[in-house]
Amino acid sequence: MTPTDSTRFASQTVHVPLSERSYDISIGTGNLAEVGRWITSLRSVTHAVLISDDHVARHYLEPVSESLKSEGIRVTKLVVPAGEPSKSVATSQELWEKALADRVDRKSSVVALGGGVIGDLAGFIAATMTRGLDFFQIPTTLLAQVDSSVGGKVGINLPAAKNIVGCFWQPRGVLIDTAVLETLPKREYLSGLAEVVKYGVILDPEFFEYLEANVQPILDRDATVLQKIVARSCELKAQVVAEDERETTGLRAILNYGHTYCHALETVSGYGEYLHGEAVAVGMLCASRLGEKLGVFAPEATERQHKLLTALGLPVDVPKLDEAAILSAMQRDKKVEHGKLRFIVPHCIGKVVLTPDVPQDVAMQAWTDGYAS
Amino acid sequence: MTPTDSTRFASQTVHVPLSERSYDISIGTGNLAEVGRWITSLRSVTHAVLISDDHVARHYLEPVSESLKSEGIRVTKLVVPAGEPSKSVATSQELWEKALADRVDRKSSVVALGGGVIGDLAGFIAATMTRGLDFFQIPTTLLAQVDSSVGGKVGINLPAAKNIVGCFWQPRGVLIDTAVLETLPKREYLSGLAEVVKYGVILDPEFFEYLEANVQPILDRDATVLQKIVARSCELKAQVVAEDERETTGLRAILNYGHTYCHALETVSGYGEYLHGEAVAVGMLCASRLGEKLGVFAPEATERQHKLLTALGLPVDVPKLDEAAILSAMQRDKKVEHGKLRFIVPHCIGKVVLTPDVPQDVAMQAWTDGYAS
Ligand SMILES: NC(=O)c1ccc[n+]([C@@H]2O[C@H](COP(=O)([O-])OP(=O)(O)OC[C@H]3O[C@@H](n4cnc5c(N)ncnc54)[C@H](O)[C@@H]3O)[C@@H](O)[C@H]2O)c1
Ligand SMILES: NC(=O)c1ccc[n+]([C@@H]2O[C@H](COP(=O)([O-])OP(=O)(O)OC[C@H]3O[C@@H](n4cnc5c(N)ncnc54)[C@H](O)[C@@H]3O)[C@@H](O)[C@H]2O)c1
Ligand SMILES: [Zn+2]
Ligand SMILES: [Zn+2]
Repeated sequence: MTPTDSTRFASQTVHVPLSERSYDISIGTGNLAEVGRWITSLRSVTHAVLISDDHVARHYLEPVSESLKSEGIRVTKLVVPAGEPSKSVATSQELWEKALADRVDRKSSVVALGGGVIGDLAGFIAATMTRGLDFFQIPTTLLAQVDSSVGGKVGINLPAAKNIVGCFWQPRGVLIDTAVLETLPKREYLSGLAEVVKYGVILDPEFFEYLEANVQPILDRDATVLQKIVARSCELKAQVVAEDERETTGLRAILNYGHTYCHALETVSGYGEYLHGEAVAVGMLCASRLGEKLGVFAPEATERQHKLLTALGLPVDVPKLDEAAILSAMQRDKKVEHGKLRFIVPHCIGKVVLTPDVPQDVAMQAWTDGYAS
Repeated sequence: MTPTDSTRFASQTVHVPLSERSYDISIGTGNLAEVGRWITSLRSVTHAVLISDDHVARHYLEPVSESLKSEGIRVTKLVVPAGEPSKSVATSQELWEKALADRVDRKSSVVALGGGVIGDLAGFIAATMTRGLDFFQIPTTLLAQVDSSVGGKVGINLPAAKNIVGCFWQPRGVLIDTAVLETLPKREYLSGLAEVVKYGVILDPEFFEYLEANVQPILDRDATVLQKIVARSCELKAQVVAEDERETTGLRAILNYGHTYCHALETVSGYGEYLHGEAVAVGMLCASRLGEKLGVFAPEATERQHKLLTALGLPVDVPKLDEAAILSAMQRDKKVEHGKLRFIVPHCIGKVVLTPDVPQDVAMQAWTDGYAS
């Protein structure tokens, strides 16, 4: 497929403005095979450490590697087992050592080919190998395309806490090929949609309407619609990140809409029971009901989210779990003061507000009200 | 001892100008016990992760910890075994986990109390824990006071390479108490002097003369003279670092004067045989002889370095080692092109020049000419 092939969809660029760390996200369909030309258009790369997981590698490692090689780039392929446990100190050590054994140096680049696990892990390797290598991302899950590949957070887990070791390390460029989502398991795909819905609720009522109007093509992974929702999601997240790159002003907190409930649900149900986006869906509805209880959000707006998330095949009911455990998980998630919790609460579709002083009992009512009736 | 105690030496400040990462190095004698007030004058610190090694901790952990606590700062004390092997992935993992277990969060600070090993290791923890914590350094070896605590390079070793994993992470402040050098073993102290001499040769002929004129007080660790040489060394390194913070323009390379030979000597003699500064002393003289051979440096200037280093108790003779091994170590140190090597070559005391095309045989003659006669 040549770049002028008329069957191709035009690719689209989202600029992420971060002063000297600014970069572009290039979004297309079928552009994976052009990664070599894309990367050399951004930087003169002679050696790439290409990091992937074994699921993704099966489908896409060779085309990406061949495309890089065709531009004269030497490629070190490093494949780790798929799944969250690879975001570890042990895997990092293995990658550092293997990259070094294959003659990595300060001019090498790191390319992440995979979902959020690979993006976070490879980004951490890029941030720390020889005190920082150029980093390129090719996100292959919907979650990674619309969320984890934007914002520069990279890192790994410790047994006692997720994402606790890491850096802010911006990529030099992100290439998104929405066609790779064809091979993504359905549950993973639907899970990614929850974050897409989130962007509509927190920032963009028109985008939310667009999603409501396009449920079927979204479920069909229609190329045109996918490109639109991925691009708009990246744009919205990039706006927020640009205003608060290192999470210091507090602005970036709005991206955590639904996430205090989500994290409590993930923790108490046991990691793995819910995919992240599934827990986000349940959590957003809790935060919506919380908005109602605080008198700032209308029940119709909760209803619209409920309807959209249901149509997209996402869970909406709160499962029956130990309520004391949920409360204490929420308390740990966001440092509490004097029995008050901090939440991102919606005021209307398109606008959320950080609300620092939510009484615990009200927060818990918004949880228990979500039990299946 | 109160801050107005007349027996105290005035403390002195060296500013390191790095735009929004600028900070001050505060240099004094007996100021260690004031670390609590110093740190709170810089940032509002409520929790400090204080990292040290078991040699240094024996003398200085309690005074530092008590001073921090007296300012209401909660202190997590983490002590690792003294020595280079602590600059490892395994020790990092241990420190990350222990800091986390003692409730580190994004508002915590890391304080390094020790030599270059502790500075590099603790700095790496600071750079990576919760994506970056405020970092404060209290260097306790001469090498750390004049060299490793300035410049923002932090990191750890892999079995196959030193300092290969790390970041650039600037401290918020550095506190130097030259009185702690009293307990430093003599060989460590002398070793640190080699880097001090280096600053004179590469940047400051008057400072070099000052060193020549003050050999005995330097050997006596005289407080006034120590403060002067530490402050001037920090100033000179800070100037270079400010012009090339992330080692991208090549300017920072002049700090490597003598270091290509030094690294070859360290590698081939086996790590641990020479202390770093000892190998620097031998290496600087090789680089000086190289300058002579290239016709840009005068034999008298080599002679002055030889005399000063000898007077300071540093080794000056090149040991008999496998010459092929030395050459190949130098080739690996600085990527060679077509049999040419890159060296920092002196043109006069106070000025060095990066010389990219030194023939290998000339480089080796400057080495073998240094054999004890
Ligand atoms: N850095 C950030 O800002 C950020 C934001 C959100 C989430 N995250 C992190 O992202 C991670 C979750 O990411 P994820 O949901 O992408 O999980 P993932 O990377 O584990 O991918 C999910 C599964 O899909 C497979 N897969 C990926 N792409 C595929 C494709 N195109 N075809 C077939 N299979 C494919 C993977 O092998 C894996 O089995 C978590 O570790 C989370 O902490 C990071
Ligand atoms: N980051 C940089 O820019 C940079 C520059 C140069 C060197 N380094 C690193 O620095 C390290 C070497 O540093 P170093 O020479 O300070 O070694 P070190 O930290 O191992 O200290 C040397 C010895 O002195 C002991 N010690 C330290 N202070 C003491 C005191 N006041 N009293 C008694 N004993 C004391 C230590 O416990 C240790 O046994 C190497 O790992 C090197 O890579 C880093
Ligand atoms: Zn999320
Ligand atoms: Zn040195």
